[in-house]
Amino acid sequence: MSKLSAVHSARVDTIATAVLTVATTGEGFFEITDDVAEFVERIKARAGAVLLYLKHTSASLVIQENADADVRTDLVTALNRLAPARAGWVHDVEGPDDMPAHIKSMLDGVALHVPVVDGGLALGTWQGIYVAEHRTQSHQRTVVLQFIGSCQ
Amino acid sequence: MSKLSAVHSARVDTIATAVLTVATTGEGFFEITDDVAEFVERIKARAGAVLLYLKHTSASLVIQENADADVRTDLVTALNRLAPARAGWVHDVEGPDDMPAHIKSMLDGVALHVPVVDGGLALGTWQGIYVAEHRTQSHQRTVVLQFIGSCQ
Amino acid sequence: MSKLSAVHSARVDTIATAVLTVATTGEGFFEITDDVAEFVERIKARAGAVLLYLKHTSASLVIQENADADVRTDLVTALNRLAPARAGWVHDVEGPDDMPAHIKSMLDGVALHVPVVDGGLALGTWQGIYVAEHRTQSHQRTVVLQFIGSCQ
Repeated sequence: MSKLSAVHSARVDTIATAVLTVATTGEGFFEITDDVAEFVERIKARAGAVLLYLKHTSASLVIQENADADVRTDLVTALNRLAPARAGWVHDVEGPDDMPAHIKSMLDGVALHVPVVDGGLALGTWQGIYVAEHRTQSHQRTVVLQFIGSCQ
Repeated sequence: MSKLSAVHSARVDTIATAVLTVATTGEGFFEITDDVAEFVERIKARAGAVLLYLKHTSASLVIQENADADVRTDLVTALNRLAPARAGWVHDVEGPDDMPAHIKSMLDGVALHVPVVDGGLALGTWQGIYVAEHRTQSHQRTVVLQFIGSCQ
Repeated sequence: MSKLSAVHSARVDTIATAVLTVATTGEGFFEITDDVAEFVERIKARAGAVLLYLKHTSASLVIQENADADVRTDLVTALNRLAPARAGWVHDVEGPDDMPAHIKSMLDGVALHVPVVDGGLALGTWQGIYVAEHRTQSHQRTVVLQFIGSCQ
């Protein structure tokens, strides 16, 4: 059972691009929802989509629950079970956490979008946008933010 | 060995947005290909892309085979092996199926796009678009559909 | 700690579409970065995004490290551990490598985008774009390339 709403159409006029730099402090989830919302507000976006792209192969972009922090703890545990360190990987010149980080990055992905509706991010009630750091050490991570759609 | 075809270009004019509500009946795959095709037809889209975004953290959007239903059965089995219930998760206040559902949602993702070419969805022969419900119980799931491109 | 750069805006004018055909030689990663860069050059794209879509359910699109080939070897190993052949799958009419290929395709995904900034792909230093073939045999794989943004 599915139901399609009425359609709202607007004229596309703008491609806007900015770069978000995120300082991670090692393995875990780092929320960037407020940064993405600031980007949308600054360009006065009305309707369209924000495209997010992470320029790395050992971290990811993830949409996940922003309520109970235990969820992110368990997500880290789950990723470590799926891609354990010291599991006979050929690639180990960059440390035991590097190859697992590449696997996690492949599974979670580095590109996604979030809709913009009525001038704001159309996230679900419990959704936040995160950079998932898969390396043990701190890193500077770069996210390319782009809006395609109509602005005020 | 790869080969790039001729390019077809058109003028982008439209961002169109609608909301698709999907009633799931518990764990499994629920096809929405016809709903997305209806959206494309209704707005008379010609060339561009449909962006799909699921506003939840315990379900996913998945492109998969729409021929043999056994494939979807095995996909559910595979996800349960990758993210089993009662595997020592810290987050268990919402029931034993909730944390596994968050993990599956992270692995499969909640955002994707499908190209529109010559006025129709450019899906592969065996591809269907699915909402993957990862919770045990029925849920109402919301998908934001957006078209960016040229219309008639 | 995060920091948002200045925003660069341009007028969206173009949706350009081409089809890339990739001949794979069985399980492994096949780089298409140069093909996607050629597409961007040919249409004189300036600012926007390239959307990539793979029309198959037993292969994937993956952004991964293009430096040490051992990484791709380990990624194949990791996928085979996550989705092993002969693991009691119901769907086995197309051979023991088919159902694992569907699972890997679901986990890695078939749709992604890469930003275009200043007329070129805004990939990270170590990032390449790959078709991941999950079947044992050679296949012809079709990728729909689309650019949305501003051209010269």
